[in-house]
Amino acid sequence: MAQDPWLLTPGPLTTSLTVKQAMLHDWGSRDAGFIAINDRMRAQLVGLIGGEGVFTSVPMQGSGTFAVEAMIGTFIGANEKLLILINGAYGKRMEKICAVARRACTTLEWAEDMPVDPALVKVALQRDPAITHVAIVHCETTSGILNPIAEVAEVVAAAGKRLLIDAMSAFGAIELDSRKIPCDAVAASSNKCIEGVPGLGFVLCRIEALQKTQGNAHALVLDLFDQWQVIEKTRQYRFTPPIHCIVAFDQALAEHAAEGGVAGRGGRYRNNCRILVEGMRRLGFETLLPEKLQAPIIVTFHMPADPNFQFQLFYDKLRERNFVIYPGKLTVADSFRIGCIGRLGETEMTAFLDAVAAVLKEMNVASGAPARKAAE
Amino acid sequence: MAQDPWLLTPGPLTTSLTVKQAMLHDWGSRDAGFIAINDRMRAQLVGLIGGEGVFTSVPMQGSGTFAVEAMIGTFIGANEKLLILINGAYGKRMEKICAVARRACTTLEWAEDMPVDPALVKVALQRDPAITHVAIVHCETTSGILNPIAEVAEVVAAAGKRLLIDAMSAFGAIELDSRKIPCDAVAASSNKCIEGVPGLGFVLCRIEALQKTQGNAHALVLDLFDQWQVIEKTRQYRFTPPIHCIVAFDQALAEHAAEGGVAGRGGRYRNNCRILVEGMRRLGFETLLPEKLQAPIIVTFHMPADPNFQFQLFYDKLRERNFVIYPGKLTVADSFRIGCIGRLGETEMTAFLDAVAAVLKEMNVASGAPARKAAE
Repeated sequence: MAQDPWLLTPGPLTTSLTVKQAMLHDWGSRDAGFIAINDRMRAQLVGLIGGEGVFTSVPMQGSGTFAVEAMIGTFIGANEKLLILINGAYGKRMEKICAVARRACTTLEWAEDMPVDPALVKVALQRDPAITHVAIVHCETTSGILNPIAEVAEVVAAAGKRLLIDAMSAFGAIELDSRKIPCDAVAASSNKCIEGVPGLGFVLCRIEALQKTQGNAHALVLDLFDQWQVIEKTRQYRFTPPIHCIVAFDQALAEHAAEGGVAGRGGRYRNNCRILVEGMRRLGFETLLPEKLQAPIIVTFHMPADPNFQFQLFYDKLRERNFVIYPGKLTVADSFRIGCIGRLGETEMTAFLDAVAAVLKEMNVASGAPARKAAE
Repeated sequence: MAQDPWLLTPGPLTTSLTVKQAMLHDWGSRDAGFIAINDRMRAQLVGLIGGEGVFTSVPMQGSGTFAVEAMIGTFIGANEKLLILINGAYGKRMEKICAVARRACTTLEWAEDMPVDPALVKVALQRDPAITHVAIVHCETTSGILNPIAEVAEVVAAAGKRLLIDAMSAFGAIELDSRKIPCDAVAASSNKCIEGVPGLGFVLCRIEALQKTQGNAHALVLDLFDQWQVIEKTRQYRFTPPIHCIVAFDQALAEHAAEGGVAGRGGRYRNNCRILVEGMRRLGFETLLPEKLQAPIIVTFHMPADPNFQFQLFYDKLRERNFVIYPGKLTVADSFRIGCIGRLGETEMTAFLDAVAAVLKEMNVASGAPARKAAE
């Protein structure tokens, strides 16, 4: 069988064969074997933020956005108000969730290539005392920018407000220690940096805060309080869990631990990112973000100025060589994205750069040509 | 590797090895290969209810209940009212969904061993003209009862109301032809009678009705209108799809077609059910339902009266023999359940009956002892 394509995307990602092979079995969802796996998965996730005894892990069927919507709907009560910090599509999505779920919210917005500014958050919290919670995206996949989560958490805690984190694409690769970063909830999913397959989201919830959320949720299936209560009491799910996905996720967590946990996984991704950025620069591409703002998750590149460069052709020719890249999602510039996460290492990143060089040659694009600049 | 347990449950089910092996690959969710699979899956599902050109298939990440809640939230508008026909836990669950999603609803309720009565539905619709929609569960897994869906659909259509069907555990094994059974939506999931793995729900929606639902949904992720619009326009998902589950579901649909579609699959299950019921009766067990109400999906048995019969021991001893059965969910009687669905046939059903006979002997339960009667 031909090699699967390498997925240089923000997900679904390339996963290990052993993770996928964990799905070759059938399990009863009420059977002791599966229950033990699910318990272990939940405990390991809490451990990843150093939240033992203080946080609980509430799995949520569906994609990462299901977990984020469940987090907002469960934690923001009828008389509460959320401040959403936006510098990309995932912050915008939280605003949309609030509109549909009818949660009071206000926003602070930055350009997609600018990090959230804690000083402005401080001012906003002073100006609007009705705000009870703040939501932030740890790594905005729109651009690949890393937000200053520790500084924002400090400002939010100092103001006596509660922080909700969409940690999706950073979780498991960039440290997020709940003992240092005060927050009530952290949402992520099975198929980002833990390298499981898609199908399960989860929210790590501060137990003391979750206990106060009964009756808040706007949808039965998205009720984290109810999901938590039933899982704690029965060790079973309210509604059929994606059992093969969970068993694969358990295997992925074991492989994550074997690689050295967050430090090890993050180290490999930083190396992937460095190889990618250096190599693409040598080929004439320019990154959207400077080094200090770039998370080692996904990198946004400006489209080259050379008129011979056509993105769809570039995509297709890389696809023929077994590499899948990602279109841009920016509004500020004409761009595309390359992911550094998933079961990829030095060998794959180097092979990818060779493929890019060959494709540019075929397309007759001059290496080293300056980038096409913003369309504004 | 040891044989996986045979799952005689309402799901997750035993699936074929080839369905599980379809998950041994990684796919990009925006890549042409996956898009073609997803298109094919959606078309095949519409075909299963004879809905070509009139219905569209809207996949929904999560379990079957996610699809049911999405159906209710999307189809019942602010000024509309749902009549829910309840004869088990899944009807009750729809009532709970309406409470959380704040949808106006009223209910008609029957005992768990009684089918929905179309004559009473007719009266209820005459008495309350505010009702705009009716919801029914095709096969109530609580008891295993088959509801008279055609007769109810006729009454609902005659009253000029719209029907929503939770077809979950019947879909793909019991005929549901949308040309004969007028309805606006049919919800089901990947891991019931199509024999895929859990992780995806779907709603087959009458296009003309779905077109009027914009802005109805109570949750962003559960918005079938928005999900449909984006998939139609971009052939991609709004939020990461459970890609391995979908590829496995596509394989499961191919195997369903190869078995002769609904007729073939239903035929095997009817045979499983007959072997099971006859064999269990020979061993002294009594079914809750008479033949004419029993769907060939899951069978409820009364607990035997013999004091030596302890369900947990019975369960554990069958589990040691590699068979997983299911606890009862009835309020009307002390019972347990055995499923007939999933990748099981005559061989497995016969082996199961042999295991039951051996376990009864070990437990010192007299075969042929009368059943323990209702606890009321």
